[in-house]
Amino acid sequence: MAQGPASGDLIETDALVIGAGPIGLFQVFQLGLLDIRAQVVDALPAPGGQPLELYPDKPIYDLPAIPVCTGRELAQALLRQIRPFGAGMHLGQTVTALETAPDGRFQLATHTGTRFLTRTVFIAAGVGAFEPRRLKVEGLARHEGRQLHYRVDDPDTLAASDLVIVGGDESALHWAAHFAADGPQRARSVTLVHRRDVFDAPPDLQSRVQALREQGAIRFVPGQVGACEADGDGPLAAVQVNLNDGGSLRLPLDHLLVFQGLSPKLGPVAEWGLAMERKQLVVDTEKFATSVPGIFAVGDINTYPGKRKLLVSGFHECTLAAYAAAPIVYPDRPVLLQYTTTSPKLQQRLGVLPPAP
Amino acid sequence: MAQGPASGDLIETDALVIGAGPIGLFQVFQLGLLDIRAQVVDALPAPGGQPLELYPDKPIYDLPAIPVCTGRELAQALLRQIRPFGAGMHLGQTVTALETAPDGRFQLATHTGTRFLTRTVFIAAGVGAFEPRRLKVEGLARHEGRQLHYRVDDPDTLAASDLVIVGGDESALHWAAHFAADGPQRARSVTLVHRRDVFDAPPDLQSRVQALREQGAIRFVPGQVGACEADGDGPLAAVQVNLNDGGSLRLPLDHLLVFQGLSPKLGPVAEWGLAMERKQLVVDTEKFATSVPGIFAVGDINTYPGKRKLLVSGFHECTLAAYAAAPIVYPDRPVLLQYTTTSPKLQQRLGVLPPAP
Repeated sequence: MAQGPASGDLIETDALVIGAGPIGLFQVFQLGLLDIRAQVVDALPAPGGQPLELYPDKPIYDLPAIPVCTGRELAQALLRQIRPFGAGMHLGQTVTALETAPDGRFQLATHTGTRFLTRTVFIAAGVGAFEPRRLKVEGLARHEGRQLHYRVDDPDTLAASDLVIVGGDESALHWAAHFAADGPQRARSVTLVHRRDVFDAPPDLQSRVQALREQGAIRFVPGQVGACEADGDGPLAAVQVNLNDGGSLRLPLDHLLVFQGLSPKLGPVAEWGLAMERKQLVVDTEKFATSVPGIFAVGDINTYPGKRKLLVSGFHECTLAAYAAAPIVYPDRPVLLQYTTTSPKLQQRLGVLPPAP
Repeated sequence: MAQGPASGDLIETDALVIGAGPIGLFQVFQLGLLDIRAQVVDALPAPGGQPLELYPDKPIYDLPAIPVCTGRELAQALLRQIRPFGAGMHLGQTVTALETAPDGRFQLATHTGTRFLTRTVFIAAGVGAFEPRRLKVEGLARHEGRQLHYRVDDPDTLAASDLVIVGGDESALHWAAHFAADGPQRARSVTLVHRRDVFDAPPDLQSRVQALREQGAIRFVPGQVGACEADGDGPLAAVQVNLNDGGSLRLPLDHLLVFQGLSPKLGPVAEWGLAMERKQLVVDTEKFATSVPGIFAVGDINTYPGKRKLLVSGFHECTLAAYAAAPIVYPDRPVLLQYTTTSPKLQQRLGVLPPAP
């Protein structure tokens, strides 16, 4: 599907929203109410952002008029709310390039080659794209995607091999148990490496792993990976673990699975020449515009006097940003404040009234 | 229950919230998360504000992550959300007086005599207190509460009498049908006065009124009340209606019921010496503070560059105002941003975790 930038289709739109987290999604909604078409890009494979990625099943208590909801429910509700506007979603892609076109519009491209031509840009990228925290060991990086994995995309390819799994969270324990248990994807050996014999995972998963350890199906090694071993440019043969007692242990392997959590990365946004302050984009509180006219920043990525990194603030910011974008997209149309409760025009846009004849 | 200002109990609190609409209620929530106790005053008899008063059953589509809810559902959800904080509600009362106490706190009193001593004040009064639009006829006002009614508090007192009902909305038709129909509260006569034979009421109610007109139980008079008639300081004897055809008609009566909708009234807030601009309270966008330190204004009553009168903005405003109030209430405590999803302290305040030992 992904094509090079030169051959990728060019998508023309009124607004490009970078980030499909709660604020990016509500940005699409507020733009839609103002009849502004939007496209959305996000580095993650699914829309929902940080709440869905970091706490899909944990409760959020401070959304207005929602006494409690989970990160997953929040994402689902917002996706339902923006459905009438049919915004294009470009997931698993990060925006790499931003340029100004001769006609004043912005040209953007993602790392998979999707290209956009848009009148306005809304950066709703939160604290940045969430990426797996890499294991920093000399010479290891070049094995990523072949023998070094930060996520398991295809478990079949790992079956019947010698696995070393690094980490102490739910993902680490889930995959250790998965590949150690009887079944078609059982590994030849599973070694779990973590600095302490204490894990951050649901109790039932911890019990399953404990049982597999007692059966000898999982070997636990308390320590940290200190070095890796390969023959020249050849495959990864083993890692060396520095044990907590001061000794070290060589672990031969076919595959190394590392689960050290996610870490946000601001990425190319930092290189677009927008005014920044302590890694945040500086905006005003009237339009939530960056230092470049037509580019707005909303949610956790921006800063202004009084800023609090709260969803309730991001929702307000993207609302005012949408109003500020309207005269750019429709220079000849006055921007009116209308209410969804009383405006037939807004209800037509929402699809709850039939379109005007 | 209501007592004079001199004898009324003095309620000490951290925060007084004026207005129990959606923003006033969410103000209580954000204050509660920061451990700031609040009391709430509202002119209406029930919390919920404008959405509940003006469109209890109509849909609102633009609340973040709530694809649709009614004014009533919004009020109910917010009341559920603030329940853990046990804020005192003082309804059917308008704040009349505001003074600064010698220790810098604010003293406020309502028209029924409730008195407050508070460190901070949050004006979340929307477009003001909603009051019935008065019928402006010379000499009529002095009959209010005896023979002139803008709401029906006790239908029994109106039974078996000659009623003139003015208005064309749902309330006017509801009470016309109510007092014209067979039953213990039936009036001796019901005359409905409205400038046109066109009504703004649900179809089934209009049909019921039409049937009662055909039976002679409701007399309809197309016109407007032009004068009233009383013997000196005595009771109201009749009104004179200017008919649409140019003539006039004298209608003797025991009670006059007037339903001309509600109109917002800013009230005494306008006289507290706070900086205003076109009937709005001027605030900054960092703290949403008025020109008097310790007094904040949030929601539709405030103004600042970019202001849009939207719920989503009011929710943000009252959140930042709560953070700005925290150092006033707790001068020695740093104000930390915590998340309800991860903070045990916030979850204790919300009552979802047991209190700390």
